Amino acid sequence: MLYGGIEAGGTKIVCAVGTGPEDLQAQISFPTTTSGETLTRIIAFFQQRQLVAPLAAIGIGSFGPISPDRFAPDYGYITTTPKPGWAQTDIVGTIERALGVPAGFDTDVNAAALGEKRWGSAQGMDTFIYLTIGTGIGGGGLSNDRLMHGLLHPEMGHIRLPHDRQADPFLGICPYHGDCLEGLASGPALNARWGVPAETLPLDHPAWALEAHYLALACVNFICTLSPQRIILGGGVMSQSHLFPLIRQEVQALLNEYIQVPAILQQIDAYIVPPGLGSQVGVLGALALAEQAAGESPVVER
Amino acid sequence: MLYGGIEAGGTKIVCAVGTGPEDLQAQISFPTTTSGETLTRIIAFFQQRQLVAPLAAIGIGSFGPISPDRFAPDYGYITTTPKPGWAQTDIVGTIERALGVPAGFDTDVNAAALGEKRWGSAQGMDTFIYLTIGTGIGGGGLSNDRLMHGLLHPEMGHIRLPHDRQADPFLGICPYHGDCLEGLASGPALNARWGVPAETLPLDHPAWALEAHYLALACVNFICTLSPQRIILGGGVMSQSHLFPLIRQEVQALLNEYIQVPAILQQIDAYIVPPGLGSQVGVLGALALAEQAAGESPVVER
Repeated sequence: MLYGGIEAGGTKIVCAVGTGPEDLQAQISFPTTTSGETLTRIIAFFQQRQLVAPLAAIGIGSFGPISPDRFAPDYGYITTTPKPGWAQTDIVGTIERALGVPAGFDTDVNAAALGEKRWGSAQGMDTFIYLTIGTGIGGGGLSNDRLMHGLLHPEMGHIRLPHDRQADPFLGICPYHGDCLEGLASGPALNARWGVPAETLPLDHPAWALEAHYLALACVNFICTLSPQRIILGGGVMSQSHLFPLIRQEVQALLNEYIQVPAILQQIDAYIVPPGLGSQVGVLGALALAEQAAGESPVVER
Repeated sequence: MLYGGIEAGGTKIVCAVGTGPEDLQAQISFPTTTSGETLTRIIAFFQQRQLVAPLAAIGIGSFGPISPDRFAPDYGYITTTPKPGWAQTDIVGTIERALGVPAGFDTDVNAAALGEKRWGSAQGMDTFIYLTIGTGIGGGGLSNDRLMHGLLHPEMGHIRLPHDRQADPFLGICPYHGDCLEGLASGPALNARWGVPAETLPLDHPAWALEAHYLALACVNFICTLSPQRIILGGGVMSQSHLFPLIRQEVQALLNEYIQVPAILQQIDAYIVPPGLGSQVGVLGALALAEQAAGESPVVER
């Protein structure tokens, strides 16, 4: 069986065809423009691949908010996004009709989490989270071996955290919440706080300790709420890999030995980790969604 | 089939025999003393009931931390509790051996959540949380139709929240974390902050708006993390039912229409609710755990 995967990001689309990380037979990437133009390019890519070999299903890991509930009237839509031209876009229906194959659909972060379960850092785990820290902050994951849904889907980037305005007078940039996690610790928040692109800041700049502090507070809240077996941190900001030891150390300090498990007390280097699939996590996660849509997922029921 | 339920609280034990809220055939309650004395009283109660009619299983909803993982070497134990004489107590093994029936075992709050799913305010829901706000603050629930576990079990009372020390200079009373949710908003925290038993404070005292503020922040973080279909708030502090409208209003204000679902935007009175089973939620939850242990739960697989 051959699958298609679509990583639909707010700034970039990645499409691939294959069966897994060792077998990607074609891949393209282009900027996200209007919904019409973007969907046309996506469909053209897969139609061309279908001339070579049939696809069993397509997986779509999308920026949001989305409607992932198969029984909702707007299932398969990108819903209330402020992104111009994308609100109320029927991405699943458009693609299923054009390509004649079933589509799996979930948030970009749930897709990434599924990819990590299938081929990456979360193999064998039934409860874990995947956070991306980049242009925005999003989180998804598996709980009890299924992708996390509920009323809608997690919006982990918007939790509220302690914010000491004397130590950090920056007010946050979330248009809805000001100083929520995304408002304080996303890439644009870093750039706005320090007035320069964060990646130009030296390793000993206080920006990094502060960033690690907020991300550690977030990890602690997710640990207390979900009891994940692992936390995977991806996204552009986490390519600053020196953040990992800072975050791990602060998570231990904040938890203060309250949660007495070796994974946190002794093996935290294996507990808070980068994605095993690296920068391919998004599109491979979409491929894992396609497997699931075809009823062929070896790891997670639909 | 007849079941036994044990609500094992840090200050009080409740035992009952029956099949559900309309059919409780016997119930007792006594203070939690030493582990030896307490377990002896529990066992004596059920042995006497076994003379009347056989029990198919026992359910135990326990204060913690506990080891709920059936495959862990210390499964069935209350583990590192600071409660004198209770650390490393094999509560499941002791009870199963004495009574000769299988025992279901989970946190008090997961048990309560299961009770609410079976007979209370969460019927038909697959993802929701139950929070108790009393001597401590704990949270459990179902995610994807199973009780929430993972590395261990949730410890929702210990999330960190914004704490404006100018508006509220109280430092919090959690011995591990100071001003975590439990440190700021549990019953003892209320009493310590205001210097009097909270239930003696008039309804217009600023204590209540502040309490609602912290509980609303907690609800918002749980909503963003888990996307629950409902939040059930129980425990002694929530018997101050005037807190509910304050919390609901502040949850809406804090979310600021970011999550566009009618349950939050229009029907929040049905979204943040007291337990349908009232003060019986703990022991009925334990009964629902017993059904599960007997393989007879109509609502949730084990």
